[in-house]
Amino acid sequence: MTIYNFSAGPATMPAEVIQEIKNDLPSYKNSGMSVMEISHRSALFEEIFQKAQQDMRDLLKIPDNYQVLFFQGGCTLQFTAAPLNLANKYHRIALLDSGHWAERAGAEAKRVGVKVDVLDSSEKDHYTKLPSLEKLQKDTYDYLHITTNNTIEGTAYTQLPNTDTTELVGDMSSNFMGQRYDVKQFGAIMAGAQKNLGIAGLTIVIVRDDLIGKVPNLPSMLDYQLFAKKESMFNTPPVFAIYAAGLVLQWLKNQGGIDEMEHRNRQKSGLLYDFLDNSKLFEAPVIKKDRSLTNVVFVTGNPEIDQQVVSQAAESGLVNIKGHRLVGGMRASLYNAMPYEGVEHLVDFLKNFEKNYRGKH
Amino acid sequence: MTIYNFSAGPATMPAEVIQEIKNDLPSYKNSGMSVMEISHRSALFEEIFQKAQQDMRDLLKIPDNYQVLFFQGGCTLQFTAAPLNLANKYHRIALLDSGHWAERAGAEAKRVGVKVDVLDSSEKDHYTKLPSLEKLQKDTYDYLHITTNNTIEGTAYTQLPNTDTTELVGDMSSNFMGQRYDVKQFGAIMAGAQKNLGIAGLTIVIVRDDLIGKVPNLPSMLDYQLFAKKESMFNTPPVFAIYAAGLVLQWLKNQGGIDEMEHRNRQKSGLLYDFLDNSKLFEAPVIKKDRSLTNVVFVTGNPEIDQQVVSQAAESGLVNIKGHRLVGGMRASLYNAMPYEGVEHLVDFLKNFEKNYRGKH
Repeated sequence: MTIYNFSAGPATMPAEVIQEIKNDLPSYKNSGMSVMEISHRSALFEEIFQKAQQDMRDLLKIPDNYQVLFFQGGCTLQFTAAPLNLANKYHRIALLDSGHWAERAGAEAKRVGVKVDVLDSSEKDHYTKLPSLEKLQKDTYDYLHITTNNTIEGTAYTQLPNTDTTELVGDMSSNFMGQRYDVKQFGAIMAGAQKNLGIAGLTIVIVRDDLIGKVPNLPSMLDYQLFAKKESMFNTPPVFAIYAAGLVLQWLKNQGGIDEMEHRNRQKSGLLYDFLDNSKLFEAPVIKKDRSLTNVVFVTGNPEIDQQVVSQAAESGLVNIKGHRLVGGMRASLYNAMPYEGVEHLVDFLKNFEKNYRGKH
Repeated sequence: MTIYNFSAGPATMPAEVIQEIKNDLPSYKNSGMSVMEISHRSALFEEIFQKAQQDMRDLLKIPDNYQVLFFQGGCTLQFTAAPLNLANKYHRIALLDSGHWAERAGAEAKRVGVKVDVLDSSEKDHYTKLPSLEKLQKDTYDYLHITTNNTIEGTAYTQLPNTDTTELVGDMSSNFMGQRYDVKQFGAIMAGAQKNLGIAGLTIVIVRDDLIGKVPNLPSMLDYQLFAKKESMFNTPPVFAIYAAGLVLQWLKNQGGIDEMEHRNRQKSGLLYDFLDNSKLFEAPVIKKDRSLTNVVFVTGNPEIDQQVVSQAAESGLVNIKGHRLVGGMRASLYNAMPYEGVEHLVDFLKNFEKNYRGKH
């Protein structure tokens, strides 16, 4: 039975990449060593590292005046690092509360003494839509933090908020490289790798040159300027995770890049949303214009039926469609590595489930 | 040609572990998913995680009143986290300066406003011996930080300093599980995984219960109490690195545990040190009682000859014996996964090199 893994992260990776990782064991490029065993200062790794960085620049069209940095610790550590590095003038940031991860970003900023103004929240709508921002009222924010894609709630920004008077900082973890954003519109972007870029334990930070190097004496592992200077190797980087990301980036290039991925993700999520919108049993609670391409949330309204859906789907090889506990119901994560056939199978399964259910009720 | 990899880290791993990782691809335990793709909340990972933790407790004989925590970011991040969590009474720590990594630990503590008293330094001896501490003079330190094994300089503590009046915090990265220490003598131990425990991107913290939870409002990714409460999963942990560490821990158990490893490491390093002490070309600069079992530093005194040694060794399959740039010369890292035969080959090579060299000079 083919397994389709709809996990929100760590998540399915391209089958070709997994095969390449297997082929590269136990000896990478005839070195007699696996990638897990090579020094981060070795020529072998230097090649992996430079290629990954360049491929990311090419794919995302990252301008030359932006740094591409590789961290550990997930975006949660960046929720600390970003305000420490970037909130250095007003010590105050703005936030659009689009759900759990936005809230967490705000909480961490406060822990390092930065003030956080929530400009709008969609909590009252149970996060089934995005908060809105017509225009920033003040120019006394170091930046506005948004979560471009809300993994748990299933929403995503297509139109970015207007931030003429401040910088935009985006947590892009769950739609990084899954749809096109213009990097120039951001002061900084952060993204965990474990959704669309390989394995857990690697975090990407893309930040504009002129924003960094303004705060002396930061803890080294949180210092954007130091990481830029040391090419992300002040200490041992997560070598294997960077290698895996490199393979995913090469795969993305081979597949046609970000625009092709966005096209496919629109097709995949479109197929599922269309079914849900026409279903009498299932419902996608997020309003149409704010729907995520990568995390499709849906419910029956009855937790017991939801539970049956999740377990019967797993028996059919459609695994990890249980919704996050904060939202309930189901969630299908359709990252770049999820093939169209996987979504077809899921929709077929849901159709059958609905048919059987209606036969009995 | 068999390759023996003497890299200081990332470093050689047991061949059986690499093979097991390969065998587990692309489908782990018939799940249809690799370990890189499974959720950290899945039953599959829960089993990996609990077993790794328990095996570590068994191998190191960790008492029940110590937490075993899994972090990212290397010990460099712990150089920030440890003072933030533990230096909460006097905001002052003591340090024994045994070289580069001790110095780095002190520098990071200062960055978070903690005072650092260097009680002794062996800098004047070019770190060819350990600093000494007869007795702490004051009881106004939150802890004494030591580096149990100095990867770059090739020294290691066998006898721990007397710290009756304060806590001992040990950076054990490069001899973690390579020789026996009594965990009870430490308030906290930190160790990066990329030397003796698998792949880069995982850091272990072992800390006594009563020392944590005293500082409110720490950044979450640096908060020992929160990591204890959330079983190291406040956010996505480095799933694959924990899996790899779990395989290494199982391998260690199969091999006979830490005492057996220490025995073997003494044999391996003894073979090399014996040769060096009897050589007329090579020399081990570290004084005998302070020599590391895992990182053997040696020199000829002539950088050009050193360079020849390093490159000819590599041609013979003995790779990565170049010394750290701060010390020069050569360094052979003999972690648990380095077999005795590797050291025999290295000694044979060095003997031949010396014979040829003396023939010409």
